[in-house]
Amino acid sequence: MSSTEMKVETLRWFNNRLEMVDQRILPAAFEYLSYYTAASVAEGIRSMVVRGAPAIGVAAAYGVALEALKLSNALEGRHSGLDPESSAFNKLDSRFRGNDDAVVFNAGMEEGFKVLVASRPTAVNLFWALQRMRKVWEGVATQSPQEIAQRLLAEAHEILAEDIRINKAMGAHGAALLKDGARVLTHCNAGALATAGWGTALGVFRSAVEAGKKISVIADETRPFLQGARLTAWEMVQENIPVTLITDNMAGYMMAQGEIDAVVVGTDRVAANGDVANKIGTYMVAVLAKRHNIPFYVACPLSTIDLNIATGKDIPIEERSVEEVKGFRDYHWAAEGVKIRNPSFDVTPAELVTGLITERGVVLQPDAQNIRKLMRGVQG
Amino acid sequence: MSSTEMKVETLRWFNNRLEMVDQRILPAAFEYLSYYTAASVAEGIRSMVVRGAPAIGVAAAYGVALEALKLSNALEGRHSGLDPESSAFNKLDSRFRGNDDAVVFNAGMEEGFKVLVASRPTAVNLFWALQRMRKVWEGVATQSPQEIAQRLLAEAHEILAEDIRINKAMGAHGAALLKDGARVLTHCNAGALATAGWGTALGVFRSAVEAGKKISVIADETRPFLQGARLTAWEMVQENIPVTLITDNMAGYMMAQGEIDAVVVGTDRVAANGDVANKIGTYMVAVLAKRHNIPFYVACPLSTIDLNIATGKDIPIEERSVEEVKGFRDYHWAAEGVKIRNPSFDVTPAELVTGLITERGVVLQPDAQNIRKLMRGVQG
Repeated sequence: MSSTEMKVETLRWFNNRLEMVDQRILPAAFEYLSYYTAASVAEGIRSMVVRGAPAIGVAAAYGVALEALKLSNALEGRHSGLDPESSAFNKLDSRFRGNDDAVVFNAGMEEGFKVLVASRPTAVNLFWALQRMRKVWEGVATQSPQEIAQRLLAEAHEILAEDIRINKAMGAHGAALLKDGARVLTHCNAGALATAGWGTALGVFRSAVEAGKKISVIADETRPFLQGARLTAWEMVQENIPVTLITDNMAGYMMAQGEIDAVVVGTDRVAANGDVANKIGTYMVAVLAKRHNIPFYVACPLSTIDLNIATGKDIPIEERSVEEVKGFRDYHWAAEGVKIRNPSFDVTPAELVTGLITERGVVLQPDAQNIRKLMRGVQG
Repeated sequence: MSSTEMKVETLRWFNNRLEMVDQRILPAAFEYLSYYTAASVAEGIRSMVVRGAPAIGVAAAYGVALEALKLSNALEGRHSGLDPESSAFNKLDSRFRGNDDAVVFNAGMEEGFKVLVASRPTAVNLFWALQRMRKVWEGVATQSPQEIAQRLLAEAHEILAEDIRINKAMGAHGAALLKDGARVLTHCNAGALATAGWGTALGVFRSAVEAGKKISVIADETRPFLQGARLTAWEMVQENIPVTLITDNMAGYMMAQGEIDAVVVGTDRVAANGDVANKIGTYMVAVLAKRHNIPFYVACPLSTIDLNIATGKDIPIEERSVEEVKGFRDYHWAAEGVKIRNPSFDVTPAELVTGLITERGVVLQPDAQNIRKLMRGVQG
């Protein structure tokens, strides 16, 4: 394993709480924020303290575990009599106090799931992780709240560890697609910061470098949240992988100049037919790559494929606050009085995708048929 | 004439000096800066106090006139004896002091041309205006410096007035291309602020509205200098023309959603074969427009067509300071240590251009043949 692997710990379990790097303030500062409840994790997802489809999934899993721990601790206090006035105890809704533990716990857990489900709409990993946690919960539903909470926490740990293993596997498959010396464009940040570590698209770059290939990265700055300028550039600089920053509108020029050999991006949801939802602007890069005969790859863990969605048209596209487009953070430059749109994702039709890089290998020219084949035997 | 016409006076002659709106600080502040010499005008062009191909041409013309006025005033002081220590007199290079007036004047003028020519490389209107001023100068070269200066100032005034007339003519031709209710995307700012007034692309919108059409504008924010967010949005808000701001990477999404009916942009230089250099990102918009069968129009005064350049490949593309891409103004967000590129323009091949909107009418499917025909009889 590379020594670089653990340079960025996007999410970590520490002192019985979830800690997440605050990605809103990177790279100016590197700080962890602490989370104790499903509601606070949901707010962390909504406000983009954590972002990137796989990382959102891991965060949501911990959100469920945290809620279970909170509820079981509160119920324990209720019976022990040691600390009847504890804040955890008092946080239990008074309407639950007359009910038995299972009713209180189950109602609290459903509230937790509800707030997490509503945090962001586009990345399917959120719903995938919540579904997986729910199944684990159902499997141990007859056990005590404390036991359920421990089982859910173990599952969240497993989802985190699994995410890194999957990224490594995708990295190996993807690295084989890149020639030595390749100049690879990426959009947004599909890196360690978008996952539990290693990254999807940037994981491919890390794996290529680990395999001894000299590659260089061209990073779209990715307005309005600037994940490319702030996060991808920062990750690549940390790894000593050569990286060049451009504004989003320069990608076409770079391709026309012959300065891009391949494109690798991440994804937030892939429909059953291979259509790819990803950060706004990905579609434009894909159209340009097609025009210039540049391969366009999507690094895509199986958890990002949504067989319940037939085509990209049905993927919900989040529209975020117009404040994000007025400027950056509190620095606004847009003219007063202008209307603003802020769709946060777009859909790239499968026909523009050269290949999906998954932990099971690369699916070239993805379509409904080869995606169905790929997903055979995968737990829904 | 519309009452809106003079709302924005980008450049104006006032108290024997050139005043230009400082476009670096718009829309937060609307301020004029004053210019007295060719060198200061060149610096104003270089630093983008003034930008936009036609406006740069007008500014350069005034730069030549200002230099002639400065030199002739200094020479007058030399002979009058009234003010031998005047700053204008002292600014004359000491090596000229022994020479006769014509030598001093001519050498000073050549210096002025030199610094103006070197200010920015891509917009051909700069060179076109300087060439025109030089011809006027040559035509009156035997007259006194004071007479030459007055003739050059009159020519600069004429170039300014002509620019507005040309924009109005382009506007009328272009407006006829837009349907009532059209939602029109534009990139960068080809507005009153990019010209002496009215604008090229935005002039088409103004003319369409004046003709009673209801149109709405979608403005790409246009990183890194944010001409769309700051200048185009501001101009349209001033005019009460509905305008929606998006980041550059949203144009593809908007087209895919069926929310764009046409594209109109300006240009900095059109090659003899119809290839169009314009603000970085224009090429990406053109490629997407083609994919979505959306007409892509370029508002292009004849002064922007460069018959000396065969194809877009030969148009010099300015690479500006990487500081511009690190953030905006002094607010930097890019990760430390990242390399940066900053090409300021790109080339859209003629095949992607539905039509060139000129003051002589619209040239559909521009190519070498119909551009040669269009330019017949135009002074080179």
